[in-house]
Amino acid sequence: MNAHSNFQASMEHFSYEHLSQFTYDILKKIGCPDEDARIASKVLLSADLRGVDSHGVARLSVYVRLWEKGRINPNPKVRVTYETPSTAVVDGDAGLGQIVGSFAMKVAMEKAKNVGTGWVSVKNSNHYGIAGYHAMLALDQDMIGISLTNASPLVAPTFSKERLLGTNPIAVAIPAKEEPAFVLDMATATAANGKLEVLQRKGLDTPTGWVQDKNGNATISSSGVKDGGALLPLGGDREHGSHKGYALGAVVDILSGVLSGANYGPWVPPFVAFLDPLPNLVGEGVGHFFGAMRIDAFRPAEEFKGHMDQWIRRFRSAETTPGHEKVLIPGDPERELEIIRKLEGIPLLDPVVQDLSELGKKFGVQF
Amino acid sequence: MNAHSNFQASMEHFSYEHLSQFTYDILKKIGCPDEDARIASKVLLSADLRGVDSHGVARLSVYVRLWEKGRINPNPKVRVTYETPSTAVVDGDAGLGQIVGSFAMKVAMEKAKNVGTGWVSVKNSNHYGIAGYHAMLALDQDMIGISLTNASPLVAPTFSKERLLGTNPIAVAIPAKEEPAFVLDMATATAANGKLEVLQRKGLDTPTGWVQDKNGNATISSSGVKDGGALLPLGGDREHGSHKGYALGAVVDILSGVLSGANYGPWVPPFVAFLDPLPNLVGEGVGHFFGAMRIDAFRPAEEFKGHMDQWIRRFRSAETTPGHEKVLIPGDPERELEIIRKLEGIPLLDPVVQDLSELGKKFGVQF
Repeated sequence: MNAHSNFQASMEHFSYEHLSQFTYDILKKIGCPDEDARIASKVLLSADLRGVDSHGVARLSVYVRLWEKGRINPNPKVRVTYETPSTAVVDGDAGLGQIVGSFAMKVAMEKAKNVGTGWVSVKNSNHYGIAGYHAMLALDQDMIGISLTNASPLVAPTFSKERLLGTNPIAVAIPAKEEPAFVLDMATATAANGKLEVLQRKGLDTPTGWVQDKNGNATISSSGVKDGGALLPLGGDREHGSHKGYALGAVVDILSGVLSGANYGPWVPPFVAFLDPLPNLVGEGVGHFFGAMRIDAFRPAEEFKGHMDQWIRRFRSAETTPGHEKVLIPGDPERELEIIRKLEGIPLLDPVVQDLSELGKKFGVQF
Repeated sequence: MNAHSNFQASMEHFSYEHLSQFTYDILKKIGCPDEDARIASKVLLSADLRGVDSHGVARLSVYVRLWEKGRINPNPKVRVTYETPSTAVVDGDAGLGQIVGSFAMKVAMEKAKNVGTGWVSVKNSNHYGIAGYHAMLALDQDMIGISLTNASPLVAPTFSKERLLGTNPIAVAIPAKEEPAFVLDMATATAANGKLEVLQRKGLDTPTGWVQDKNGNATISSSGVKDGGALLPLGGDREHGSHKGYALGAVVDILSGVLSGANYGPWVPPFVAFLDPLPNLVGEGVGHFFGAMRIDAFRPAEEFKGHMDQWIRRFRSAETTPGHEKVLIPGDPERELEIIRKLEGIPLLDPVVQDLSELGKKFGVQF
């Protein structure tokens, strides 16, 4: 197909190291301390490695523009404002979500070390990159990691014409023994906005159940959201279970926003600099929620991980439906892509390359 | 429609009190202690009140047949076998899941009182009724309640021909102030088996994305599962996000089964007496997972509940899509039905009435 090959032709590959160094340099220029710039680049680039291109280096200039507007604090004093032995609330001081999230996940893991589990709700933060990164921090501590965040409203609940929820992802990372870890990292919408953008560029329609138009009618137009419509919750419509996707996104919103004192629902500040936050906000910044559960707070970690291997092997070796080679384990596609992209580089679209070059010029950093 | 009106005609209504007393009497006859029979009837009947008819009194005779087979212990010694300040593992001693679940949820809430949150994984249990019941126990303690369970394999993961997961529900109950609580209670399949049975009786097809046939091909036959096929994970197929429904069901399975030492995946014992559990089981009985989070381990409960009211009111008053009156809050339909059924009685299908009459005769209890 012509549209497809045009699309392929407009990609250029860059090494992980190059993009990582560039991101670090830019973050230093806007005033991030050394360690923060290092962490934030790592989180951002992990999205590119794992194939969630919409959450990686392609968004670097959005963070910079939010900093220019004073909506991101490059040198935040992230701190615990309230805690019990197994819980905490973290105030992100308007910092980069990548920094705030890493801090909060560490607090959760520290609490898990002490009392078995740790649960941290975060306010006054910003977009934190891919949810899975933070959850996966728990893996080498033999803990189960959980990471949720709310986000700017793009999703319409079942029967709603209005966008009231973000794509509010759920990530759960569970360690295994010889098998790679089980890593769920999913938006609670049928498909996240990044996939729409790809189809739009190719001039292709979406499958049913992804989008509604500005009047609230189902559409397969890949520009449906851009034209004032909304993404649909996982399930697509009521008959196919969209009330479940909506409810899951709502739980993510409540644990991230209402529990911490961040904004929630339609009040979550937009992740673009050209739209201002709503007046009369109900909380502070974006909200996240993190959990860490020490495996051996339930049963010996080695025993658990042995059973995880058995779980994974049984599912991976299941008889398949016609036309499919194997059943995937959550995390398989991302891990496989990560290996390829570390070797072959990260593909960036021409508009992204141009955007990053300009960003480099502006700050005197070579791209 | 003829099929529909025939179906309607075959329903008889019974009062909550009548069905509750009958269930209690039968449970006493099979050897449940007084208090256990009382709790189990309450949990079972809550399914009928809330409209999850497949998990209510219609299943009473299944529990009895499992007891006859020695698979349900009517007088279990349910106990904590391992714990930390925020976690516990509970051994259900092959008791009714309703009893084991209530015990485990109490342990979780006790831990939440002490250290902010409590998390309990359960092994050696049986079907526990509706997930939502257990989660809702947290509400009047100003806690968020979470309840998960694995179940007999009926769902095929994305690309799998085999049934490897149960309909593995997720329930989350969150208190509000003046508004009724937010209660999510959902199967991680597009539609649970009970809905298929209803369509089958009416001779109607299913929507797309609910079922695959025994060869792993999509079907709209409502007898697809009965004929050797499988239910599909929320999303239906890969293009519509079934890998997300599958992964959510998998997380429920792992937290309930692998973390506790219960069975998991295809090894979860069938919830019917005519099928024996698989040989070489990987754990003990059915598994559940419960969580309780004290609201004021994060922020003052009154403040939180005030914001929950605002959340609920904003969503409920959203502009609607064409043909719909309002946006529902998770828990709305079940709560409304509960009011009606407490007043008007619980409708039971003729075969269920017959089944319960026979059960009554067998045990000398009048239905």
